[in-house]
Amino acid sequence: MDRTQLTELLAAVRAGTVSPDEAAHRIGALPYAEVAQAVVLDHHRELRTGIPEIVYGASKTADQIVAALRELEKDGGAIATRVDTAKAAAVRAAMPAAAYHEAARVIVLGTAPTRPACGTIAVVCAGTSDLGVAEEAALVAEFLGAPVLRVGDVGVAGLHRLLARVDDIRKADVVIGVAGMEAALPSVLGGLIDRPLIAVPTSVGYGVSLDGLVALGSLLSGCVPGTTVVNIDNGVGAAVAAVKIARLVKR
Amino acid sequence: MDRTQLTELLAAVRAGTVSPDEAAHRIGALPYAEVAQAVVLDHHRELRTGIPEIVYGASKTADQIVAALRELEKDGGAIATRVDTAKAAAVRAAMPAAAYHEAARVIVLGTAPTRPACGTIAVVCAGTSDLGVAEEAALVAEFLGAPVLRVGDVGVAGLHRLLARVDDIRKADVVIGVAGMEAALPSVLGGLIDRPLIAVPTSVGYGVSLDGLVALGSLLSGCVPGTTVVNIDNGVGAAVAAVKIARLVKR
Amino acid sequence: MDRTQLTELLAAVRAGTVSPDEAAHRIGALPYAEVAQAVVLDHHRELRTGIPEIVYGASKTADQIVAALRELEKDGGAIATRVDTAKAAAVRAAMPAAAYHEAARVIVLGTAPTRPACGTIAVVCAGTSDLGVAEEAALVAEFLGAPVLRVGDVGVAGLHRLLARVDDIRKADVVIGVAGMEAALPSVLGGLIDRPLIAVPTSVGYGVSLDGLVALGSLLSGCVPGTTVVNIDNGVGAAVAAVKIARLVKR
Amino acid sequence: MDRTQLTELLAAVRAGTVSPDEAAHRIGALPYAEVAQAVVLDHHRELRTGIPEIVYGASKTADQIVAALRELEKDGGAIATRVDTAKAAAVRAAMPAAAYHEAARVIVLGTAPTRPACGTIAVVCAGTSDLGVAEEAALVAEFLGAPVLRVGDVGVAGLHRLLARVDDIRKADVVIGVAGMEAALPSVLGGLIDRPLIAVPTSVGYGVSLDGLVALGSLLSGCVPGTTVVNIDNGVGAAVAAVKIARLVKR
Amino acid sequence: MDRTQLTELLAAVRAGTVSPDEAAHRIGALPYAEVAQAVVLDHHRELRTGIPEIVYGASKTADQIVAALRELEKDGGAIATRVDTAKAAAVRAAMPAAAYHEAARVIVLGTAPTRPACGTIAVVCAGTSDLGVAEEAALVAEFLGAPVLRVGDVGVAGLHRLLARVDDIRKADVVIGVAGMEAALPSVLGGLIDRPLIAVPTSVGYGVSLDGLVALGSLLSGCVPGTTVVNIDNGVGAAVAAVKIARLVKR
Amino acid sequence: MDRTQLTELLAAVRAGTVSPDEAAHRIGALPYAEVAQAVVLDHHRELRTGIPEIVYGASKTADQIVAALRELEKDGGAIATRVDTAKAAAVRAAMPAAAYHEAARVIVLGTAPTRPACGTIAVVCAGTSDLGVAEEAALVAEFLGAPVLRVGDVGVAGLHRLLARVDDIRKADVVIGVAGMEAALPSVLGGLIDRPLIAVPTSVGYGVSLDGLVALGSLLSGCVPGTTVVNIDNGVGAAVAAVKIARLVKR
Amino acid sequence: MDRTQLTELLAAVRAGTVSPDEAAHRIGALPYAEVAQAVVLDHHRELRTGIPEIVYGASKTADQIVAALRELEKDGGAIATRVDTAKAAAVRAAMPAAAYHEAARVIVLGTAPTRPACGTIAVVCAGTSDLGVAEEAALVAEFLGAPVLRVGDVGVAGLHRLLARVDDIRKADVVIGVAGMEAALPSVLGGLIDRPLIAVPTSVGYGVSLDGLVALGSLLSGCVPGTTVVNIDNGVGAAVAAVKIARLVKR
Amino acid sequence: MDRTQLTELLAAVRAGTVSPDEAAHRIGALPYAEVAQAVVLDHHRELRTGIPEIVYGASKTADQIVAALRELEKDGGAIATRVDTAKAAAVRAAMPAAAYHEAARVIVLGTAPTRPACGTIAVVCAGTSDLGVAEEAALVAEFLGAPVLRVGDVGVAGLHRLLARVDDIRKADVVIGVAGMEAALPSVLGGLIDRPLIAVPTSVGYGVSLDGLVALGSLLSGCVPGTTVVNIDNGVGAAVAAVKIARLVKR
Repeated sequence: MDRTQLTELLAAVRAGTVSPDEAAHRIGALPYAEVAQAVVLDHHRELRTGIPEIVYGASKTADQIVAALRELEKDGGAIATRVDTAKAAAVRAAMPAAAYHEAARVIVLGTAPTRPACGTIAVVCAGTSDLGVAEEAALVAEFLGAPVLRVGDVGVAGLHRLLARVDDIRKADVVIGVAGMEAALPSVLGGLIDRPLIAVPTSVGYGVSLDGLVALGSLLSGCVPGTTVVNIDNGVGAAVAAVKIARLVKR
Repeated sequence: MDRTQLTELLAAVRAGTVSPDEAAHRIGALPYAEVAQAVVLDHHRELRTGIPEIVYGASKTADQIVAALRELEKDGGAIATRVDTAKAAAVRAAMPAAAYHEAARVIVLGTAPTRPACGTIAVVCAGTSDLGVAEEAALVAEFLGAPVLRVGDVGVAGLHRLLARVDDIRKADVVIGVAGMEAALPSVLGGLIDRPLIAVPTSVGYGVSLDGLVALGSLLSGCVPGTTVVNIDNGVGAAVAAVKIARLVKR
Repeated sequence: MDRTQLTELLAAVRAGTVSPDEAAHRIGALPYAEVAQAVVLDHHRELRTGIPEIVYGASKTADQIVAALRELEKDGGAIATRVDTAKAAAVRAAMPAAAYHEAARVIVLGTAPTRPACGTIAVVCAGTSDLGVAEEAALVAEFLGAPVLRVGDVGVAGLHRLLARVDDIRKADVVIGVAGMEAALPSVLGGLIDRPLIAVPTSVGYGVSLDGLVALGSLLSGCVPGTTVVNIDNGVGAAVAAVKIARLVKR
Repeated sequence: MDRTQLTELLAAVRAGTVSPDEAAHRIGALPYAEVAQAVVLDHHRELRTGIPEIVYGASKTADQIVAALRELEKDGGAIATRVDTAKAAAVRAAMPAAAYHEAARVIVLGTAPTRPACGTIAVVCAGTSDLGVAEEAALVAEFLGAPVLRVGDVGVAGLHRLLARVDDIRKADVVIGVAGMEAALPSVLGGLIDRPLIAVPTSVGYGVSLDGLVALGSLLSGCVPGTTVVNIDNGVGAAVAAVKIARLVKR
Repeated sequence: MDRTQLTELLAAVRAGTVSPDEAAHRIGALPYAEVAQAVVLDHHRELRTGIPEIVYGASKTADQIVAALRELEKDGGAIATRVDTAKAAAVRAAMPAAAYHEAARVIVLGTAPTRPACGTIAVVCAGTSDLGVAEEAALVAEFLGAPVLRVGDVGVAGLHRLLARVDDIRKADVVIGVAGMEAALPSVLGGLIDRPLIAVPTSVGYGVSLDGLVALGSLLSGCVPGTTVVNIDNGVGAAVAAVKIARLVKR
Repeated sequence: MDRTQLTELLAAVRAGTVSPDEAAHRIGALPYAEVAQAVVLDHHRELRTGIPEIVYGASKTADQIVAALRELEKDGGAIATRVDTAKAAAVRAAMPAAAYHEAARVIVLGTAPTRPACGTIAVVCAGTSDLGVAEEAALVAEFLGAPVLRVGDVGVAGLHRLLARVDDIRKADVVIGVAGMEAALPSVLGGLIDRPLIAVPTSVGYGVSLDGLVALGSLLSGCVPGTTVVNIDNGVGAAVAAVKIARLVKR
Repeated sequence: MDRTQLTELLAAVRAGTVSPDEAAHRIGALPYAEVAQAVVLDHHRELRTGIPEIVYGASKTADQIVAALRELEKDGGAIATRVDTAKAAAVRAAMPAAAYHEAARVIVLGTAPTRPACGTIAVVCAGTSDLGVAEEAALVAEFLGAPVLRVGDVGVAGLHRLLARVDDIRKADVVIGVAGMEAALPSVLGGLIDRPLIAVPTSVGYGVSLDGLVALGSLLSGCVPGTTVVNIDNGVGAAVAAVKIARLVKR
Repeated sequence: MDRTQLTELLAAVRAGTVSPDEAAHRIGALPYAEVAQAVVLDHHRELRTGIPEIVYGASKTADQIVAALRELEKDGGAIATRVDTAKAAAVRAAMPAAAYHEAARVIVLGTAPTRPACGTIAVVCAGTSDLGVAEEAALVAEFLGAPVLRVGDVGVAGLHRLLARVDDIRKADVVIGVAGMEAALPSVLGGLIDRPLIAVPTSVGYGVSLDGLVALGSLLSGCVPGTTVVNIDNGVGAAVAAVKIARLVKR
């Protein structure tokens, strides 16, 4: 039952050809499907969750990425992640306006529409090998409208470098910590700041690192309460979570 | 917005004090909550999925089990699973009419209401250690209205015993195969019959059996296509699935 | 001992040259092998399990797939799964009549013989990345004689899309739910319908998804009793199970 | 070098008995220890991270819990988690003013000091078995100064119950979702709301649930970006993270 | 169809009341079940596999163990494994003739019947903590008729002790090596002898030993080809395998 | 200290220039190294373990394989395993006399020297995908001097095929069972024969098969005691173990 | 052949009753066993590895612990680890001179003999829950003759406490770092000092901590090269390794 | 606050324009960052941990490796590990003076500066497949200034080869044992020597070896206390740890 059918039913009620009780019964018996359908027509994804669709390039061909970006671009801008070099070349051949960030494997197209106001997000990165994931998080956060502070190469093996940047990090509203191997950075950081901290384990490492599972387990087992975690190498997830949080600052 | 409010709104439409368009807008804007609430009032769980609630005793106290059984008994009968001996004694002290099946750890109370007609279910069990899980499946299936054929002690270590019962098993409409350790029974059985076969791995075994994980993996890896699997020791799940299938026979 | 030898022995009994007791001894001493061999001659695989052989292309060369399809085609039609693009090209060069479904990696050859009557199977798919597995299930089910309803892109991230299709899904006799990542679709679906539901976890995902193990575990741990599960990406297994079930409807 | 020694050194500088250059050298050569020591004296843990110490009762005796609560109470109030019934009885014998929340295994003592202003936190719970963890999260959040909205029994097996509460949940600033078994609730919820969502997997389940590892993996693999996760059964961690976030609303 | 029915059928053939062709049809159509049943009547388990039933006490009550031992004792002797101290006391109260070997958790009853001749089996044990499993293997092997040489405390931490016993071990026909923790003993032993070597990993160890999984993996990964392995703590399996091998010596 | 030095020392004793006590001290102080060295000179590997070196081709270049085969060929024949097609071509270019068995990935060179007499080994194989591993085992066993009976395509999905071959299998002295996926074949076979049975799990399978780990676990968990197991795909290990056993028959 | 027999043989050589050549043959033919036996008589375990036997109490009864301590005490002192409170009471009843360290679960008896000189060992401990393992390491190291510096409660959640102690830690020759949960302490510490660092993961933690496996993996994956690791909770192993290292300082 | 600012502050104190108390306050309030910054300026990494940076080539391009080597070469020499053949060719094209060790995948450039005096390190290797990891350890140790003794092909399958080299190994100050598969070598070695022993598991093996996880677990579970372990294939970590230890000998 769409809006037209509903209006017709109500007109029939007004005309007296359908009793209010009968109409109440018919509307009450609406299957989920149609109610939901109606809702769908009114609410776009971004309205519901505050976050537009982000194209996940890993399981798509270059053609599919181009098509998805074109569709989303109508809203003013679009972004795709996990786009490898070969796909990126093909996408850029089709859409020269697309900018490719190689280390982050991210394509950004057009200018994102004005988003809700958003606090600052610090993206803090332990080692140079983790920079790709960190930059993915930073680019997605910026696409979603957040000012981003990048803080790199502050792994715990050189503690002084982290300590030297703590005051900068404290100025952000939300912090994303990216770390592979034993992922000690967020544990140390969590004890030094009072901001929400989202940790991203990376698959950097070898042997017993198990492609990031140990970093993940380490972050979840951390002794500083209050750090939350996303999937391995999931820069997108961390950025979306951070943006949802940072928007609270500006309400 | 409940039925009363809806009828009032529709009466207002009929009376001309609210336009059909305005009413359509108001109804279309119904939050999920109230539509769903209305649905809840009309549909009980059993009507939606065909299966009444089955009390899971493991995470409940004896008092909670008694309360749940009392509530469900109003529909004509009730069943609780994973009730250990101590809790069962306490439940039976409170409800002497409850019957306790010790090996299966199941309590049955009252007579189940007439259920939809249902084909026959064979519950086939590899070893004596698996009998508890098999009996849980059999009792739940019977509670849900299915005729059950129990076939025990037909593990593949004594293949002749299984072969001797194959013709009986073939007469059932659906087959549940219960097996622990290496769980070879359903693999062999699946190659001999043309009926739907649901396999239940059990936690019987030690060492590398990993509390049933190997039996589970073995069943899912089986070379005979078409066997489906439920969680380890999940006699209830197998029974519910089998009943949903067996009811198709009688439609 | 084949039928001829047996008849000769019995003729000797009638002729009195072999006593009944001696003949009983000889027959009783029949090794398994020959009894079984005799059975084999009378019963083909499809007669025993109701399901013809389905060629598993992953571990075969293009030549072997062609040979297998040619042999099975004699029964009126044949199907091969997990055939990658390169092998498919080679197969089609040899058998131009073969149809290749690229996303599903399935080759269908000829027209399947008339199969037993079969109820309808809905194949419900969470995300676009899961479509290959879903289509494999759908094609195999159709090859086995089942009418198939395809319902795509109804992952729980956009719940309204699933709700909008629930009534359609309810019209099928059996439902196959295909889902990767956290595999929440079948859990939600299981609470909304009263049909047998077979869930297929897929290897879609990354990091902690562990190539589908988390989706598998999630499905087996589901709180709605009665959903059964097959191996990761096992569209064939789900189709065979669903067909065995759906045939019960038409008996 | 403590403050006294430092002041003495500076006095010597002023007196001219130590040159500024020499003093700069001495201070620059301060070992970490003493600088840090000095910092310790000035900054309490709560000042640094915004969160006071929460007593983790699992690895402490009743006596140790009492001592820790007494020490922390000096700041105006104290809270201990994972206190089982036996320890709780002993603690309450020693401190009759302590309130014990049995399902949550939490002891609260005294009135917490005025905390920073904080937005509302919704604690949403899938099943009754998850209520203990959910209540732990709720009590800790309240102790830290957050208004808490409890929403229970909204697992996806009965989707309508969740839908009926979505509008309430949307009114909170931050949402904690607690779920065991296949942990589908947060996946569904994440697609319906635009608030920060922290998911807590619980160890509820059996067999392949692996004491919560599958729920954890499921949550981290979720297809809705932006949900963050804490350790299994870690109600405290979720509450601390949610409070850090919710405080941003009121800055 | 049992022997009597078969003889009657054949008598009818001789009498001419049933044609040979008809009789051949009837016999050829024998369902598996009855053929198998007939086999069962003729062949006891020991005749088929050479090994009598060994009572697995872990999943049985004392009463069930007593009943099983009484039944098996009719063949001249019986043995039960994994009988803990409490059950053993109850069994011995009922059957004072039963001998209990506490470290091995084995009960032996009566005198085993004369078994096939059997070569000598050496049971070699790495550490004192592994002695229980080693003794289980030794007792079962002796019950099955094998002469057993026990060689203890020859772990690789004290290599000289192992070297001092190598010549003795070489005199056996088959060797069982029992080892927990890193299970290096069988690797070393396998390079020194030319006899069949069966390794039993034990659950001795802690932490990363994972209840014997590392010992198992270590044994299966061993660089000396030709060592075979049984389940963790599976002294019975090793003994049965060794006896099957050692009997070949005496054929 | 080699033999010459020892004889010189003893001559000095006889000559009276070294006292017996001093000589005893010198000999007693022999480091392990030299004693062992002396042993090494007298005993070749084959003499010690009865098995010559088998070249493991996976971690060697074609050149290294050629060199190793040339060295071993001096003893009359040589064998290399896990040689892929490309390496095999290079090896055969260098040694045209080498025979390459492609499915088994085995190269055999020259005629093996006369080995100890050896009983017959049956190599039984579940599916066609397992044939490579089975043939590796068969070729190695033959190289070591064993008569081999190959029994293929007897997986439990078509039980009759296995039953039809059981009597043949029983005629062997030792049985190697090769099976992937759920590896049910050896479980069934173990209940039908009285011979030593060595099971080889294969990495055939996908999804939850975990590259053979489930097959391995299934075989180790088997309910028929007495089956022993080697590493996944380890045809060499099974062959060596079987030959060591089968030689006992002929002593 | 022991020393006496050897001296007799050599006397016979001197006397001319045995030729040097014959004697050389006899000695060269010495089986491993006797050579090794001879070595055993001359060398005690401590002489070979520098470390006396340490009684592992977990798998021993109180009586066995007492017996072992009495035997070892003859060398001047003895130590037993993993002795729970109940066993400790029984041991002390039998040997009142034994000192029991409850948190460490260690019993020390008598005064250890003078050991080789040894550098200082710092035992650094992250949290109060790890103190038991740390103290086990400290007591064993002291028993082996090492001066020990205990540094407690310096987990990374309160980084300043660790920094405040770094200079003290630097004064030790070897450092043992004990940490559970995410085990970040040794990572941080490894970047601050130039001493050998041995890390001990502990089983402290819950949920995804997996009884210390995550701490272990974290330590092995650490980004600071040069930290070595022992088994979970293995204070003894760390102490032995540290002592072997610290003795190098004093050579 | 850098040194200049500090000197200015102290000058102000001397001048009387800032009171000592005020200056003490300002210095005490120094944020971590600046103190740390100051420290950074004074202390290079090698000064802090005694070990210069070692370039990890696996996650770097050839260009990045060249740049890193050029930077580090300024200190007199540089080393890069995990450089595959292709990258090595590119590096050597840019820096012809660089020496490439192919088996070890190591590039060494220039002459290392004089390092602290260092005892001898023995690198002991079980099999030829482990030689690459062993050589990586040896080259790094030499680069760090250690004399290295290489002992190869002493796996436990041929125990005599190990025994023949034990006396040589005993002459080293520290021992690195490299072993894959079941990794029994270090267990045996640990019982024979009194030196610090660092074990490196390698990923050599297949099937259940799990890319070195079983070797790792085996080493950590070893029954000889005092062996420490590094990550799988981590020759660098073992070398750094060994050098830190061996330097103690020469202090």
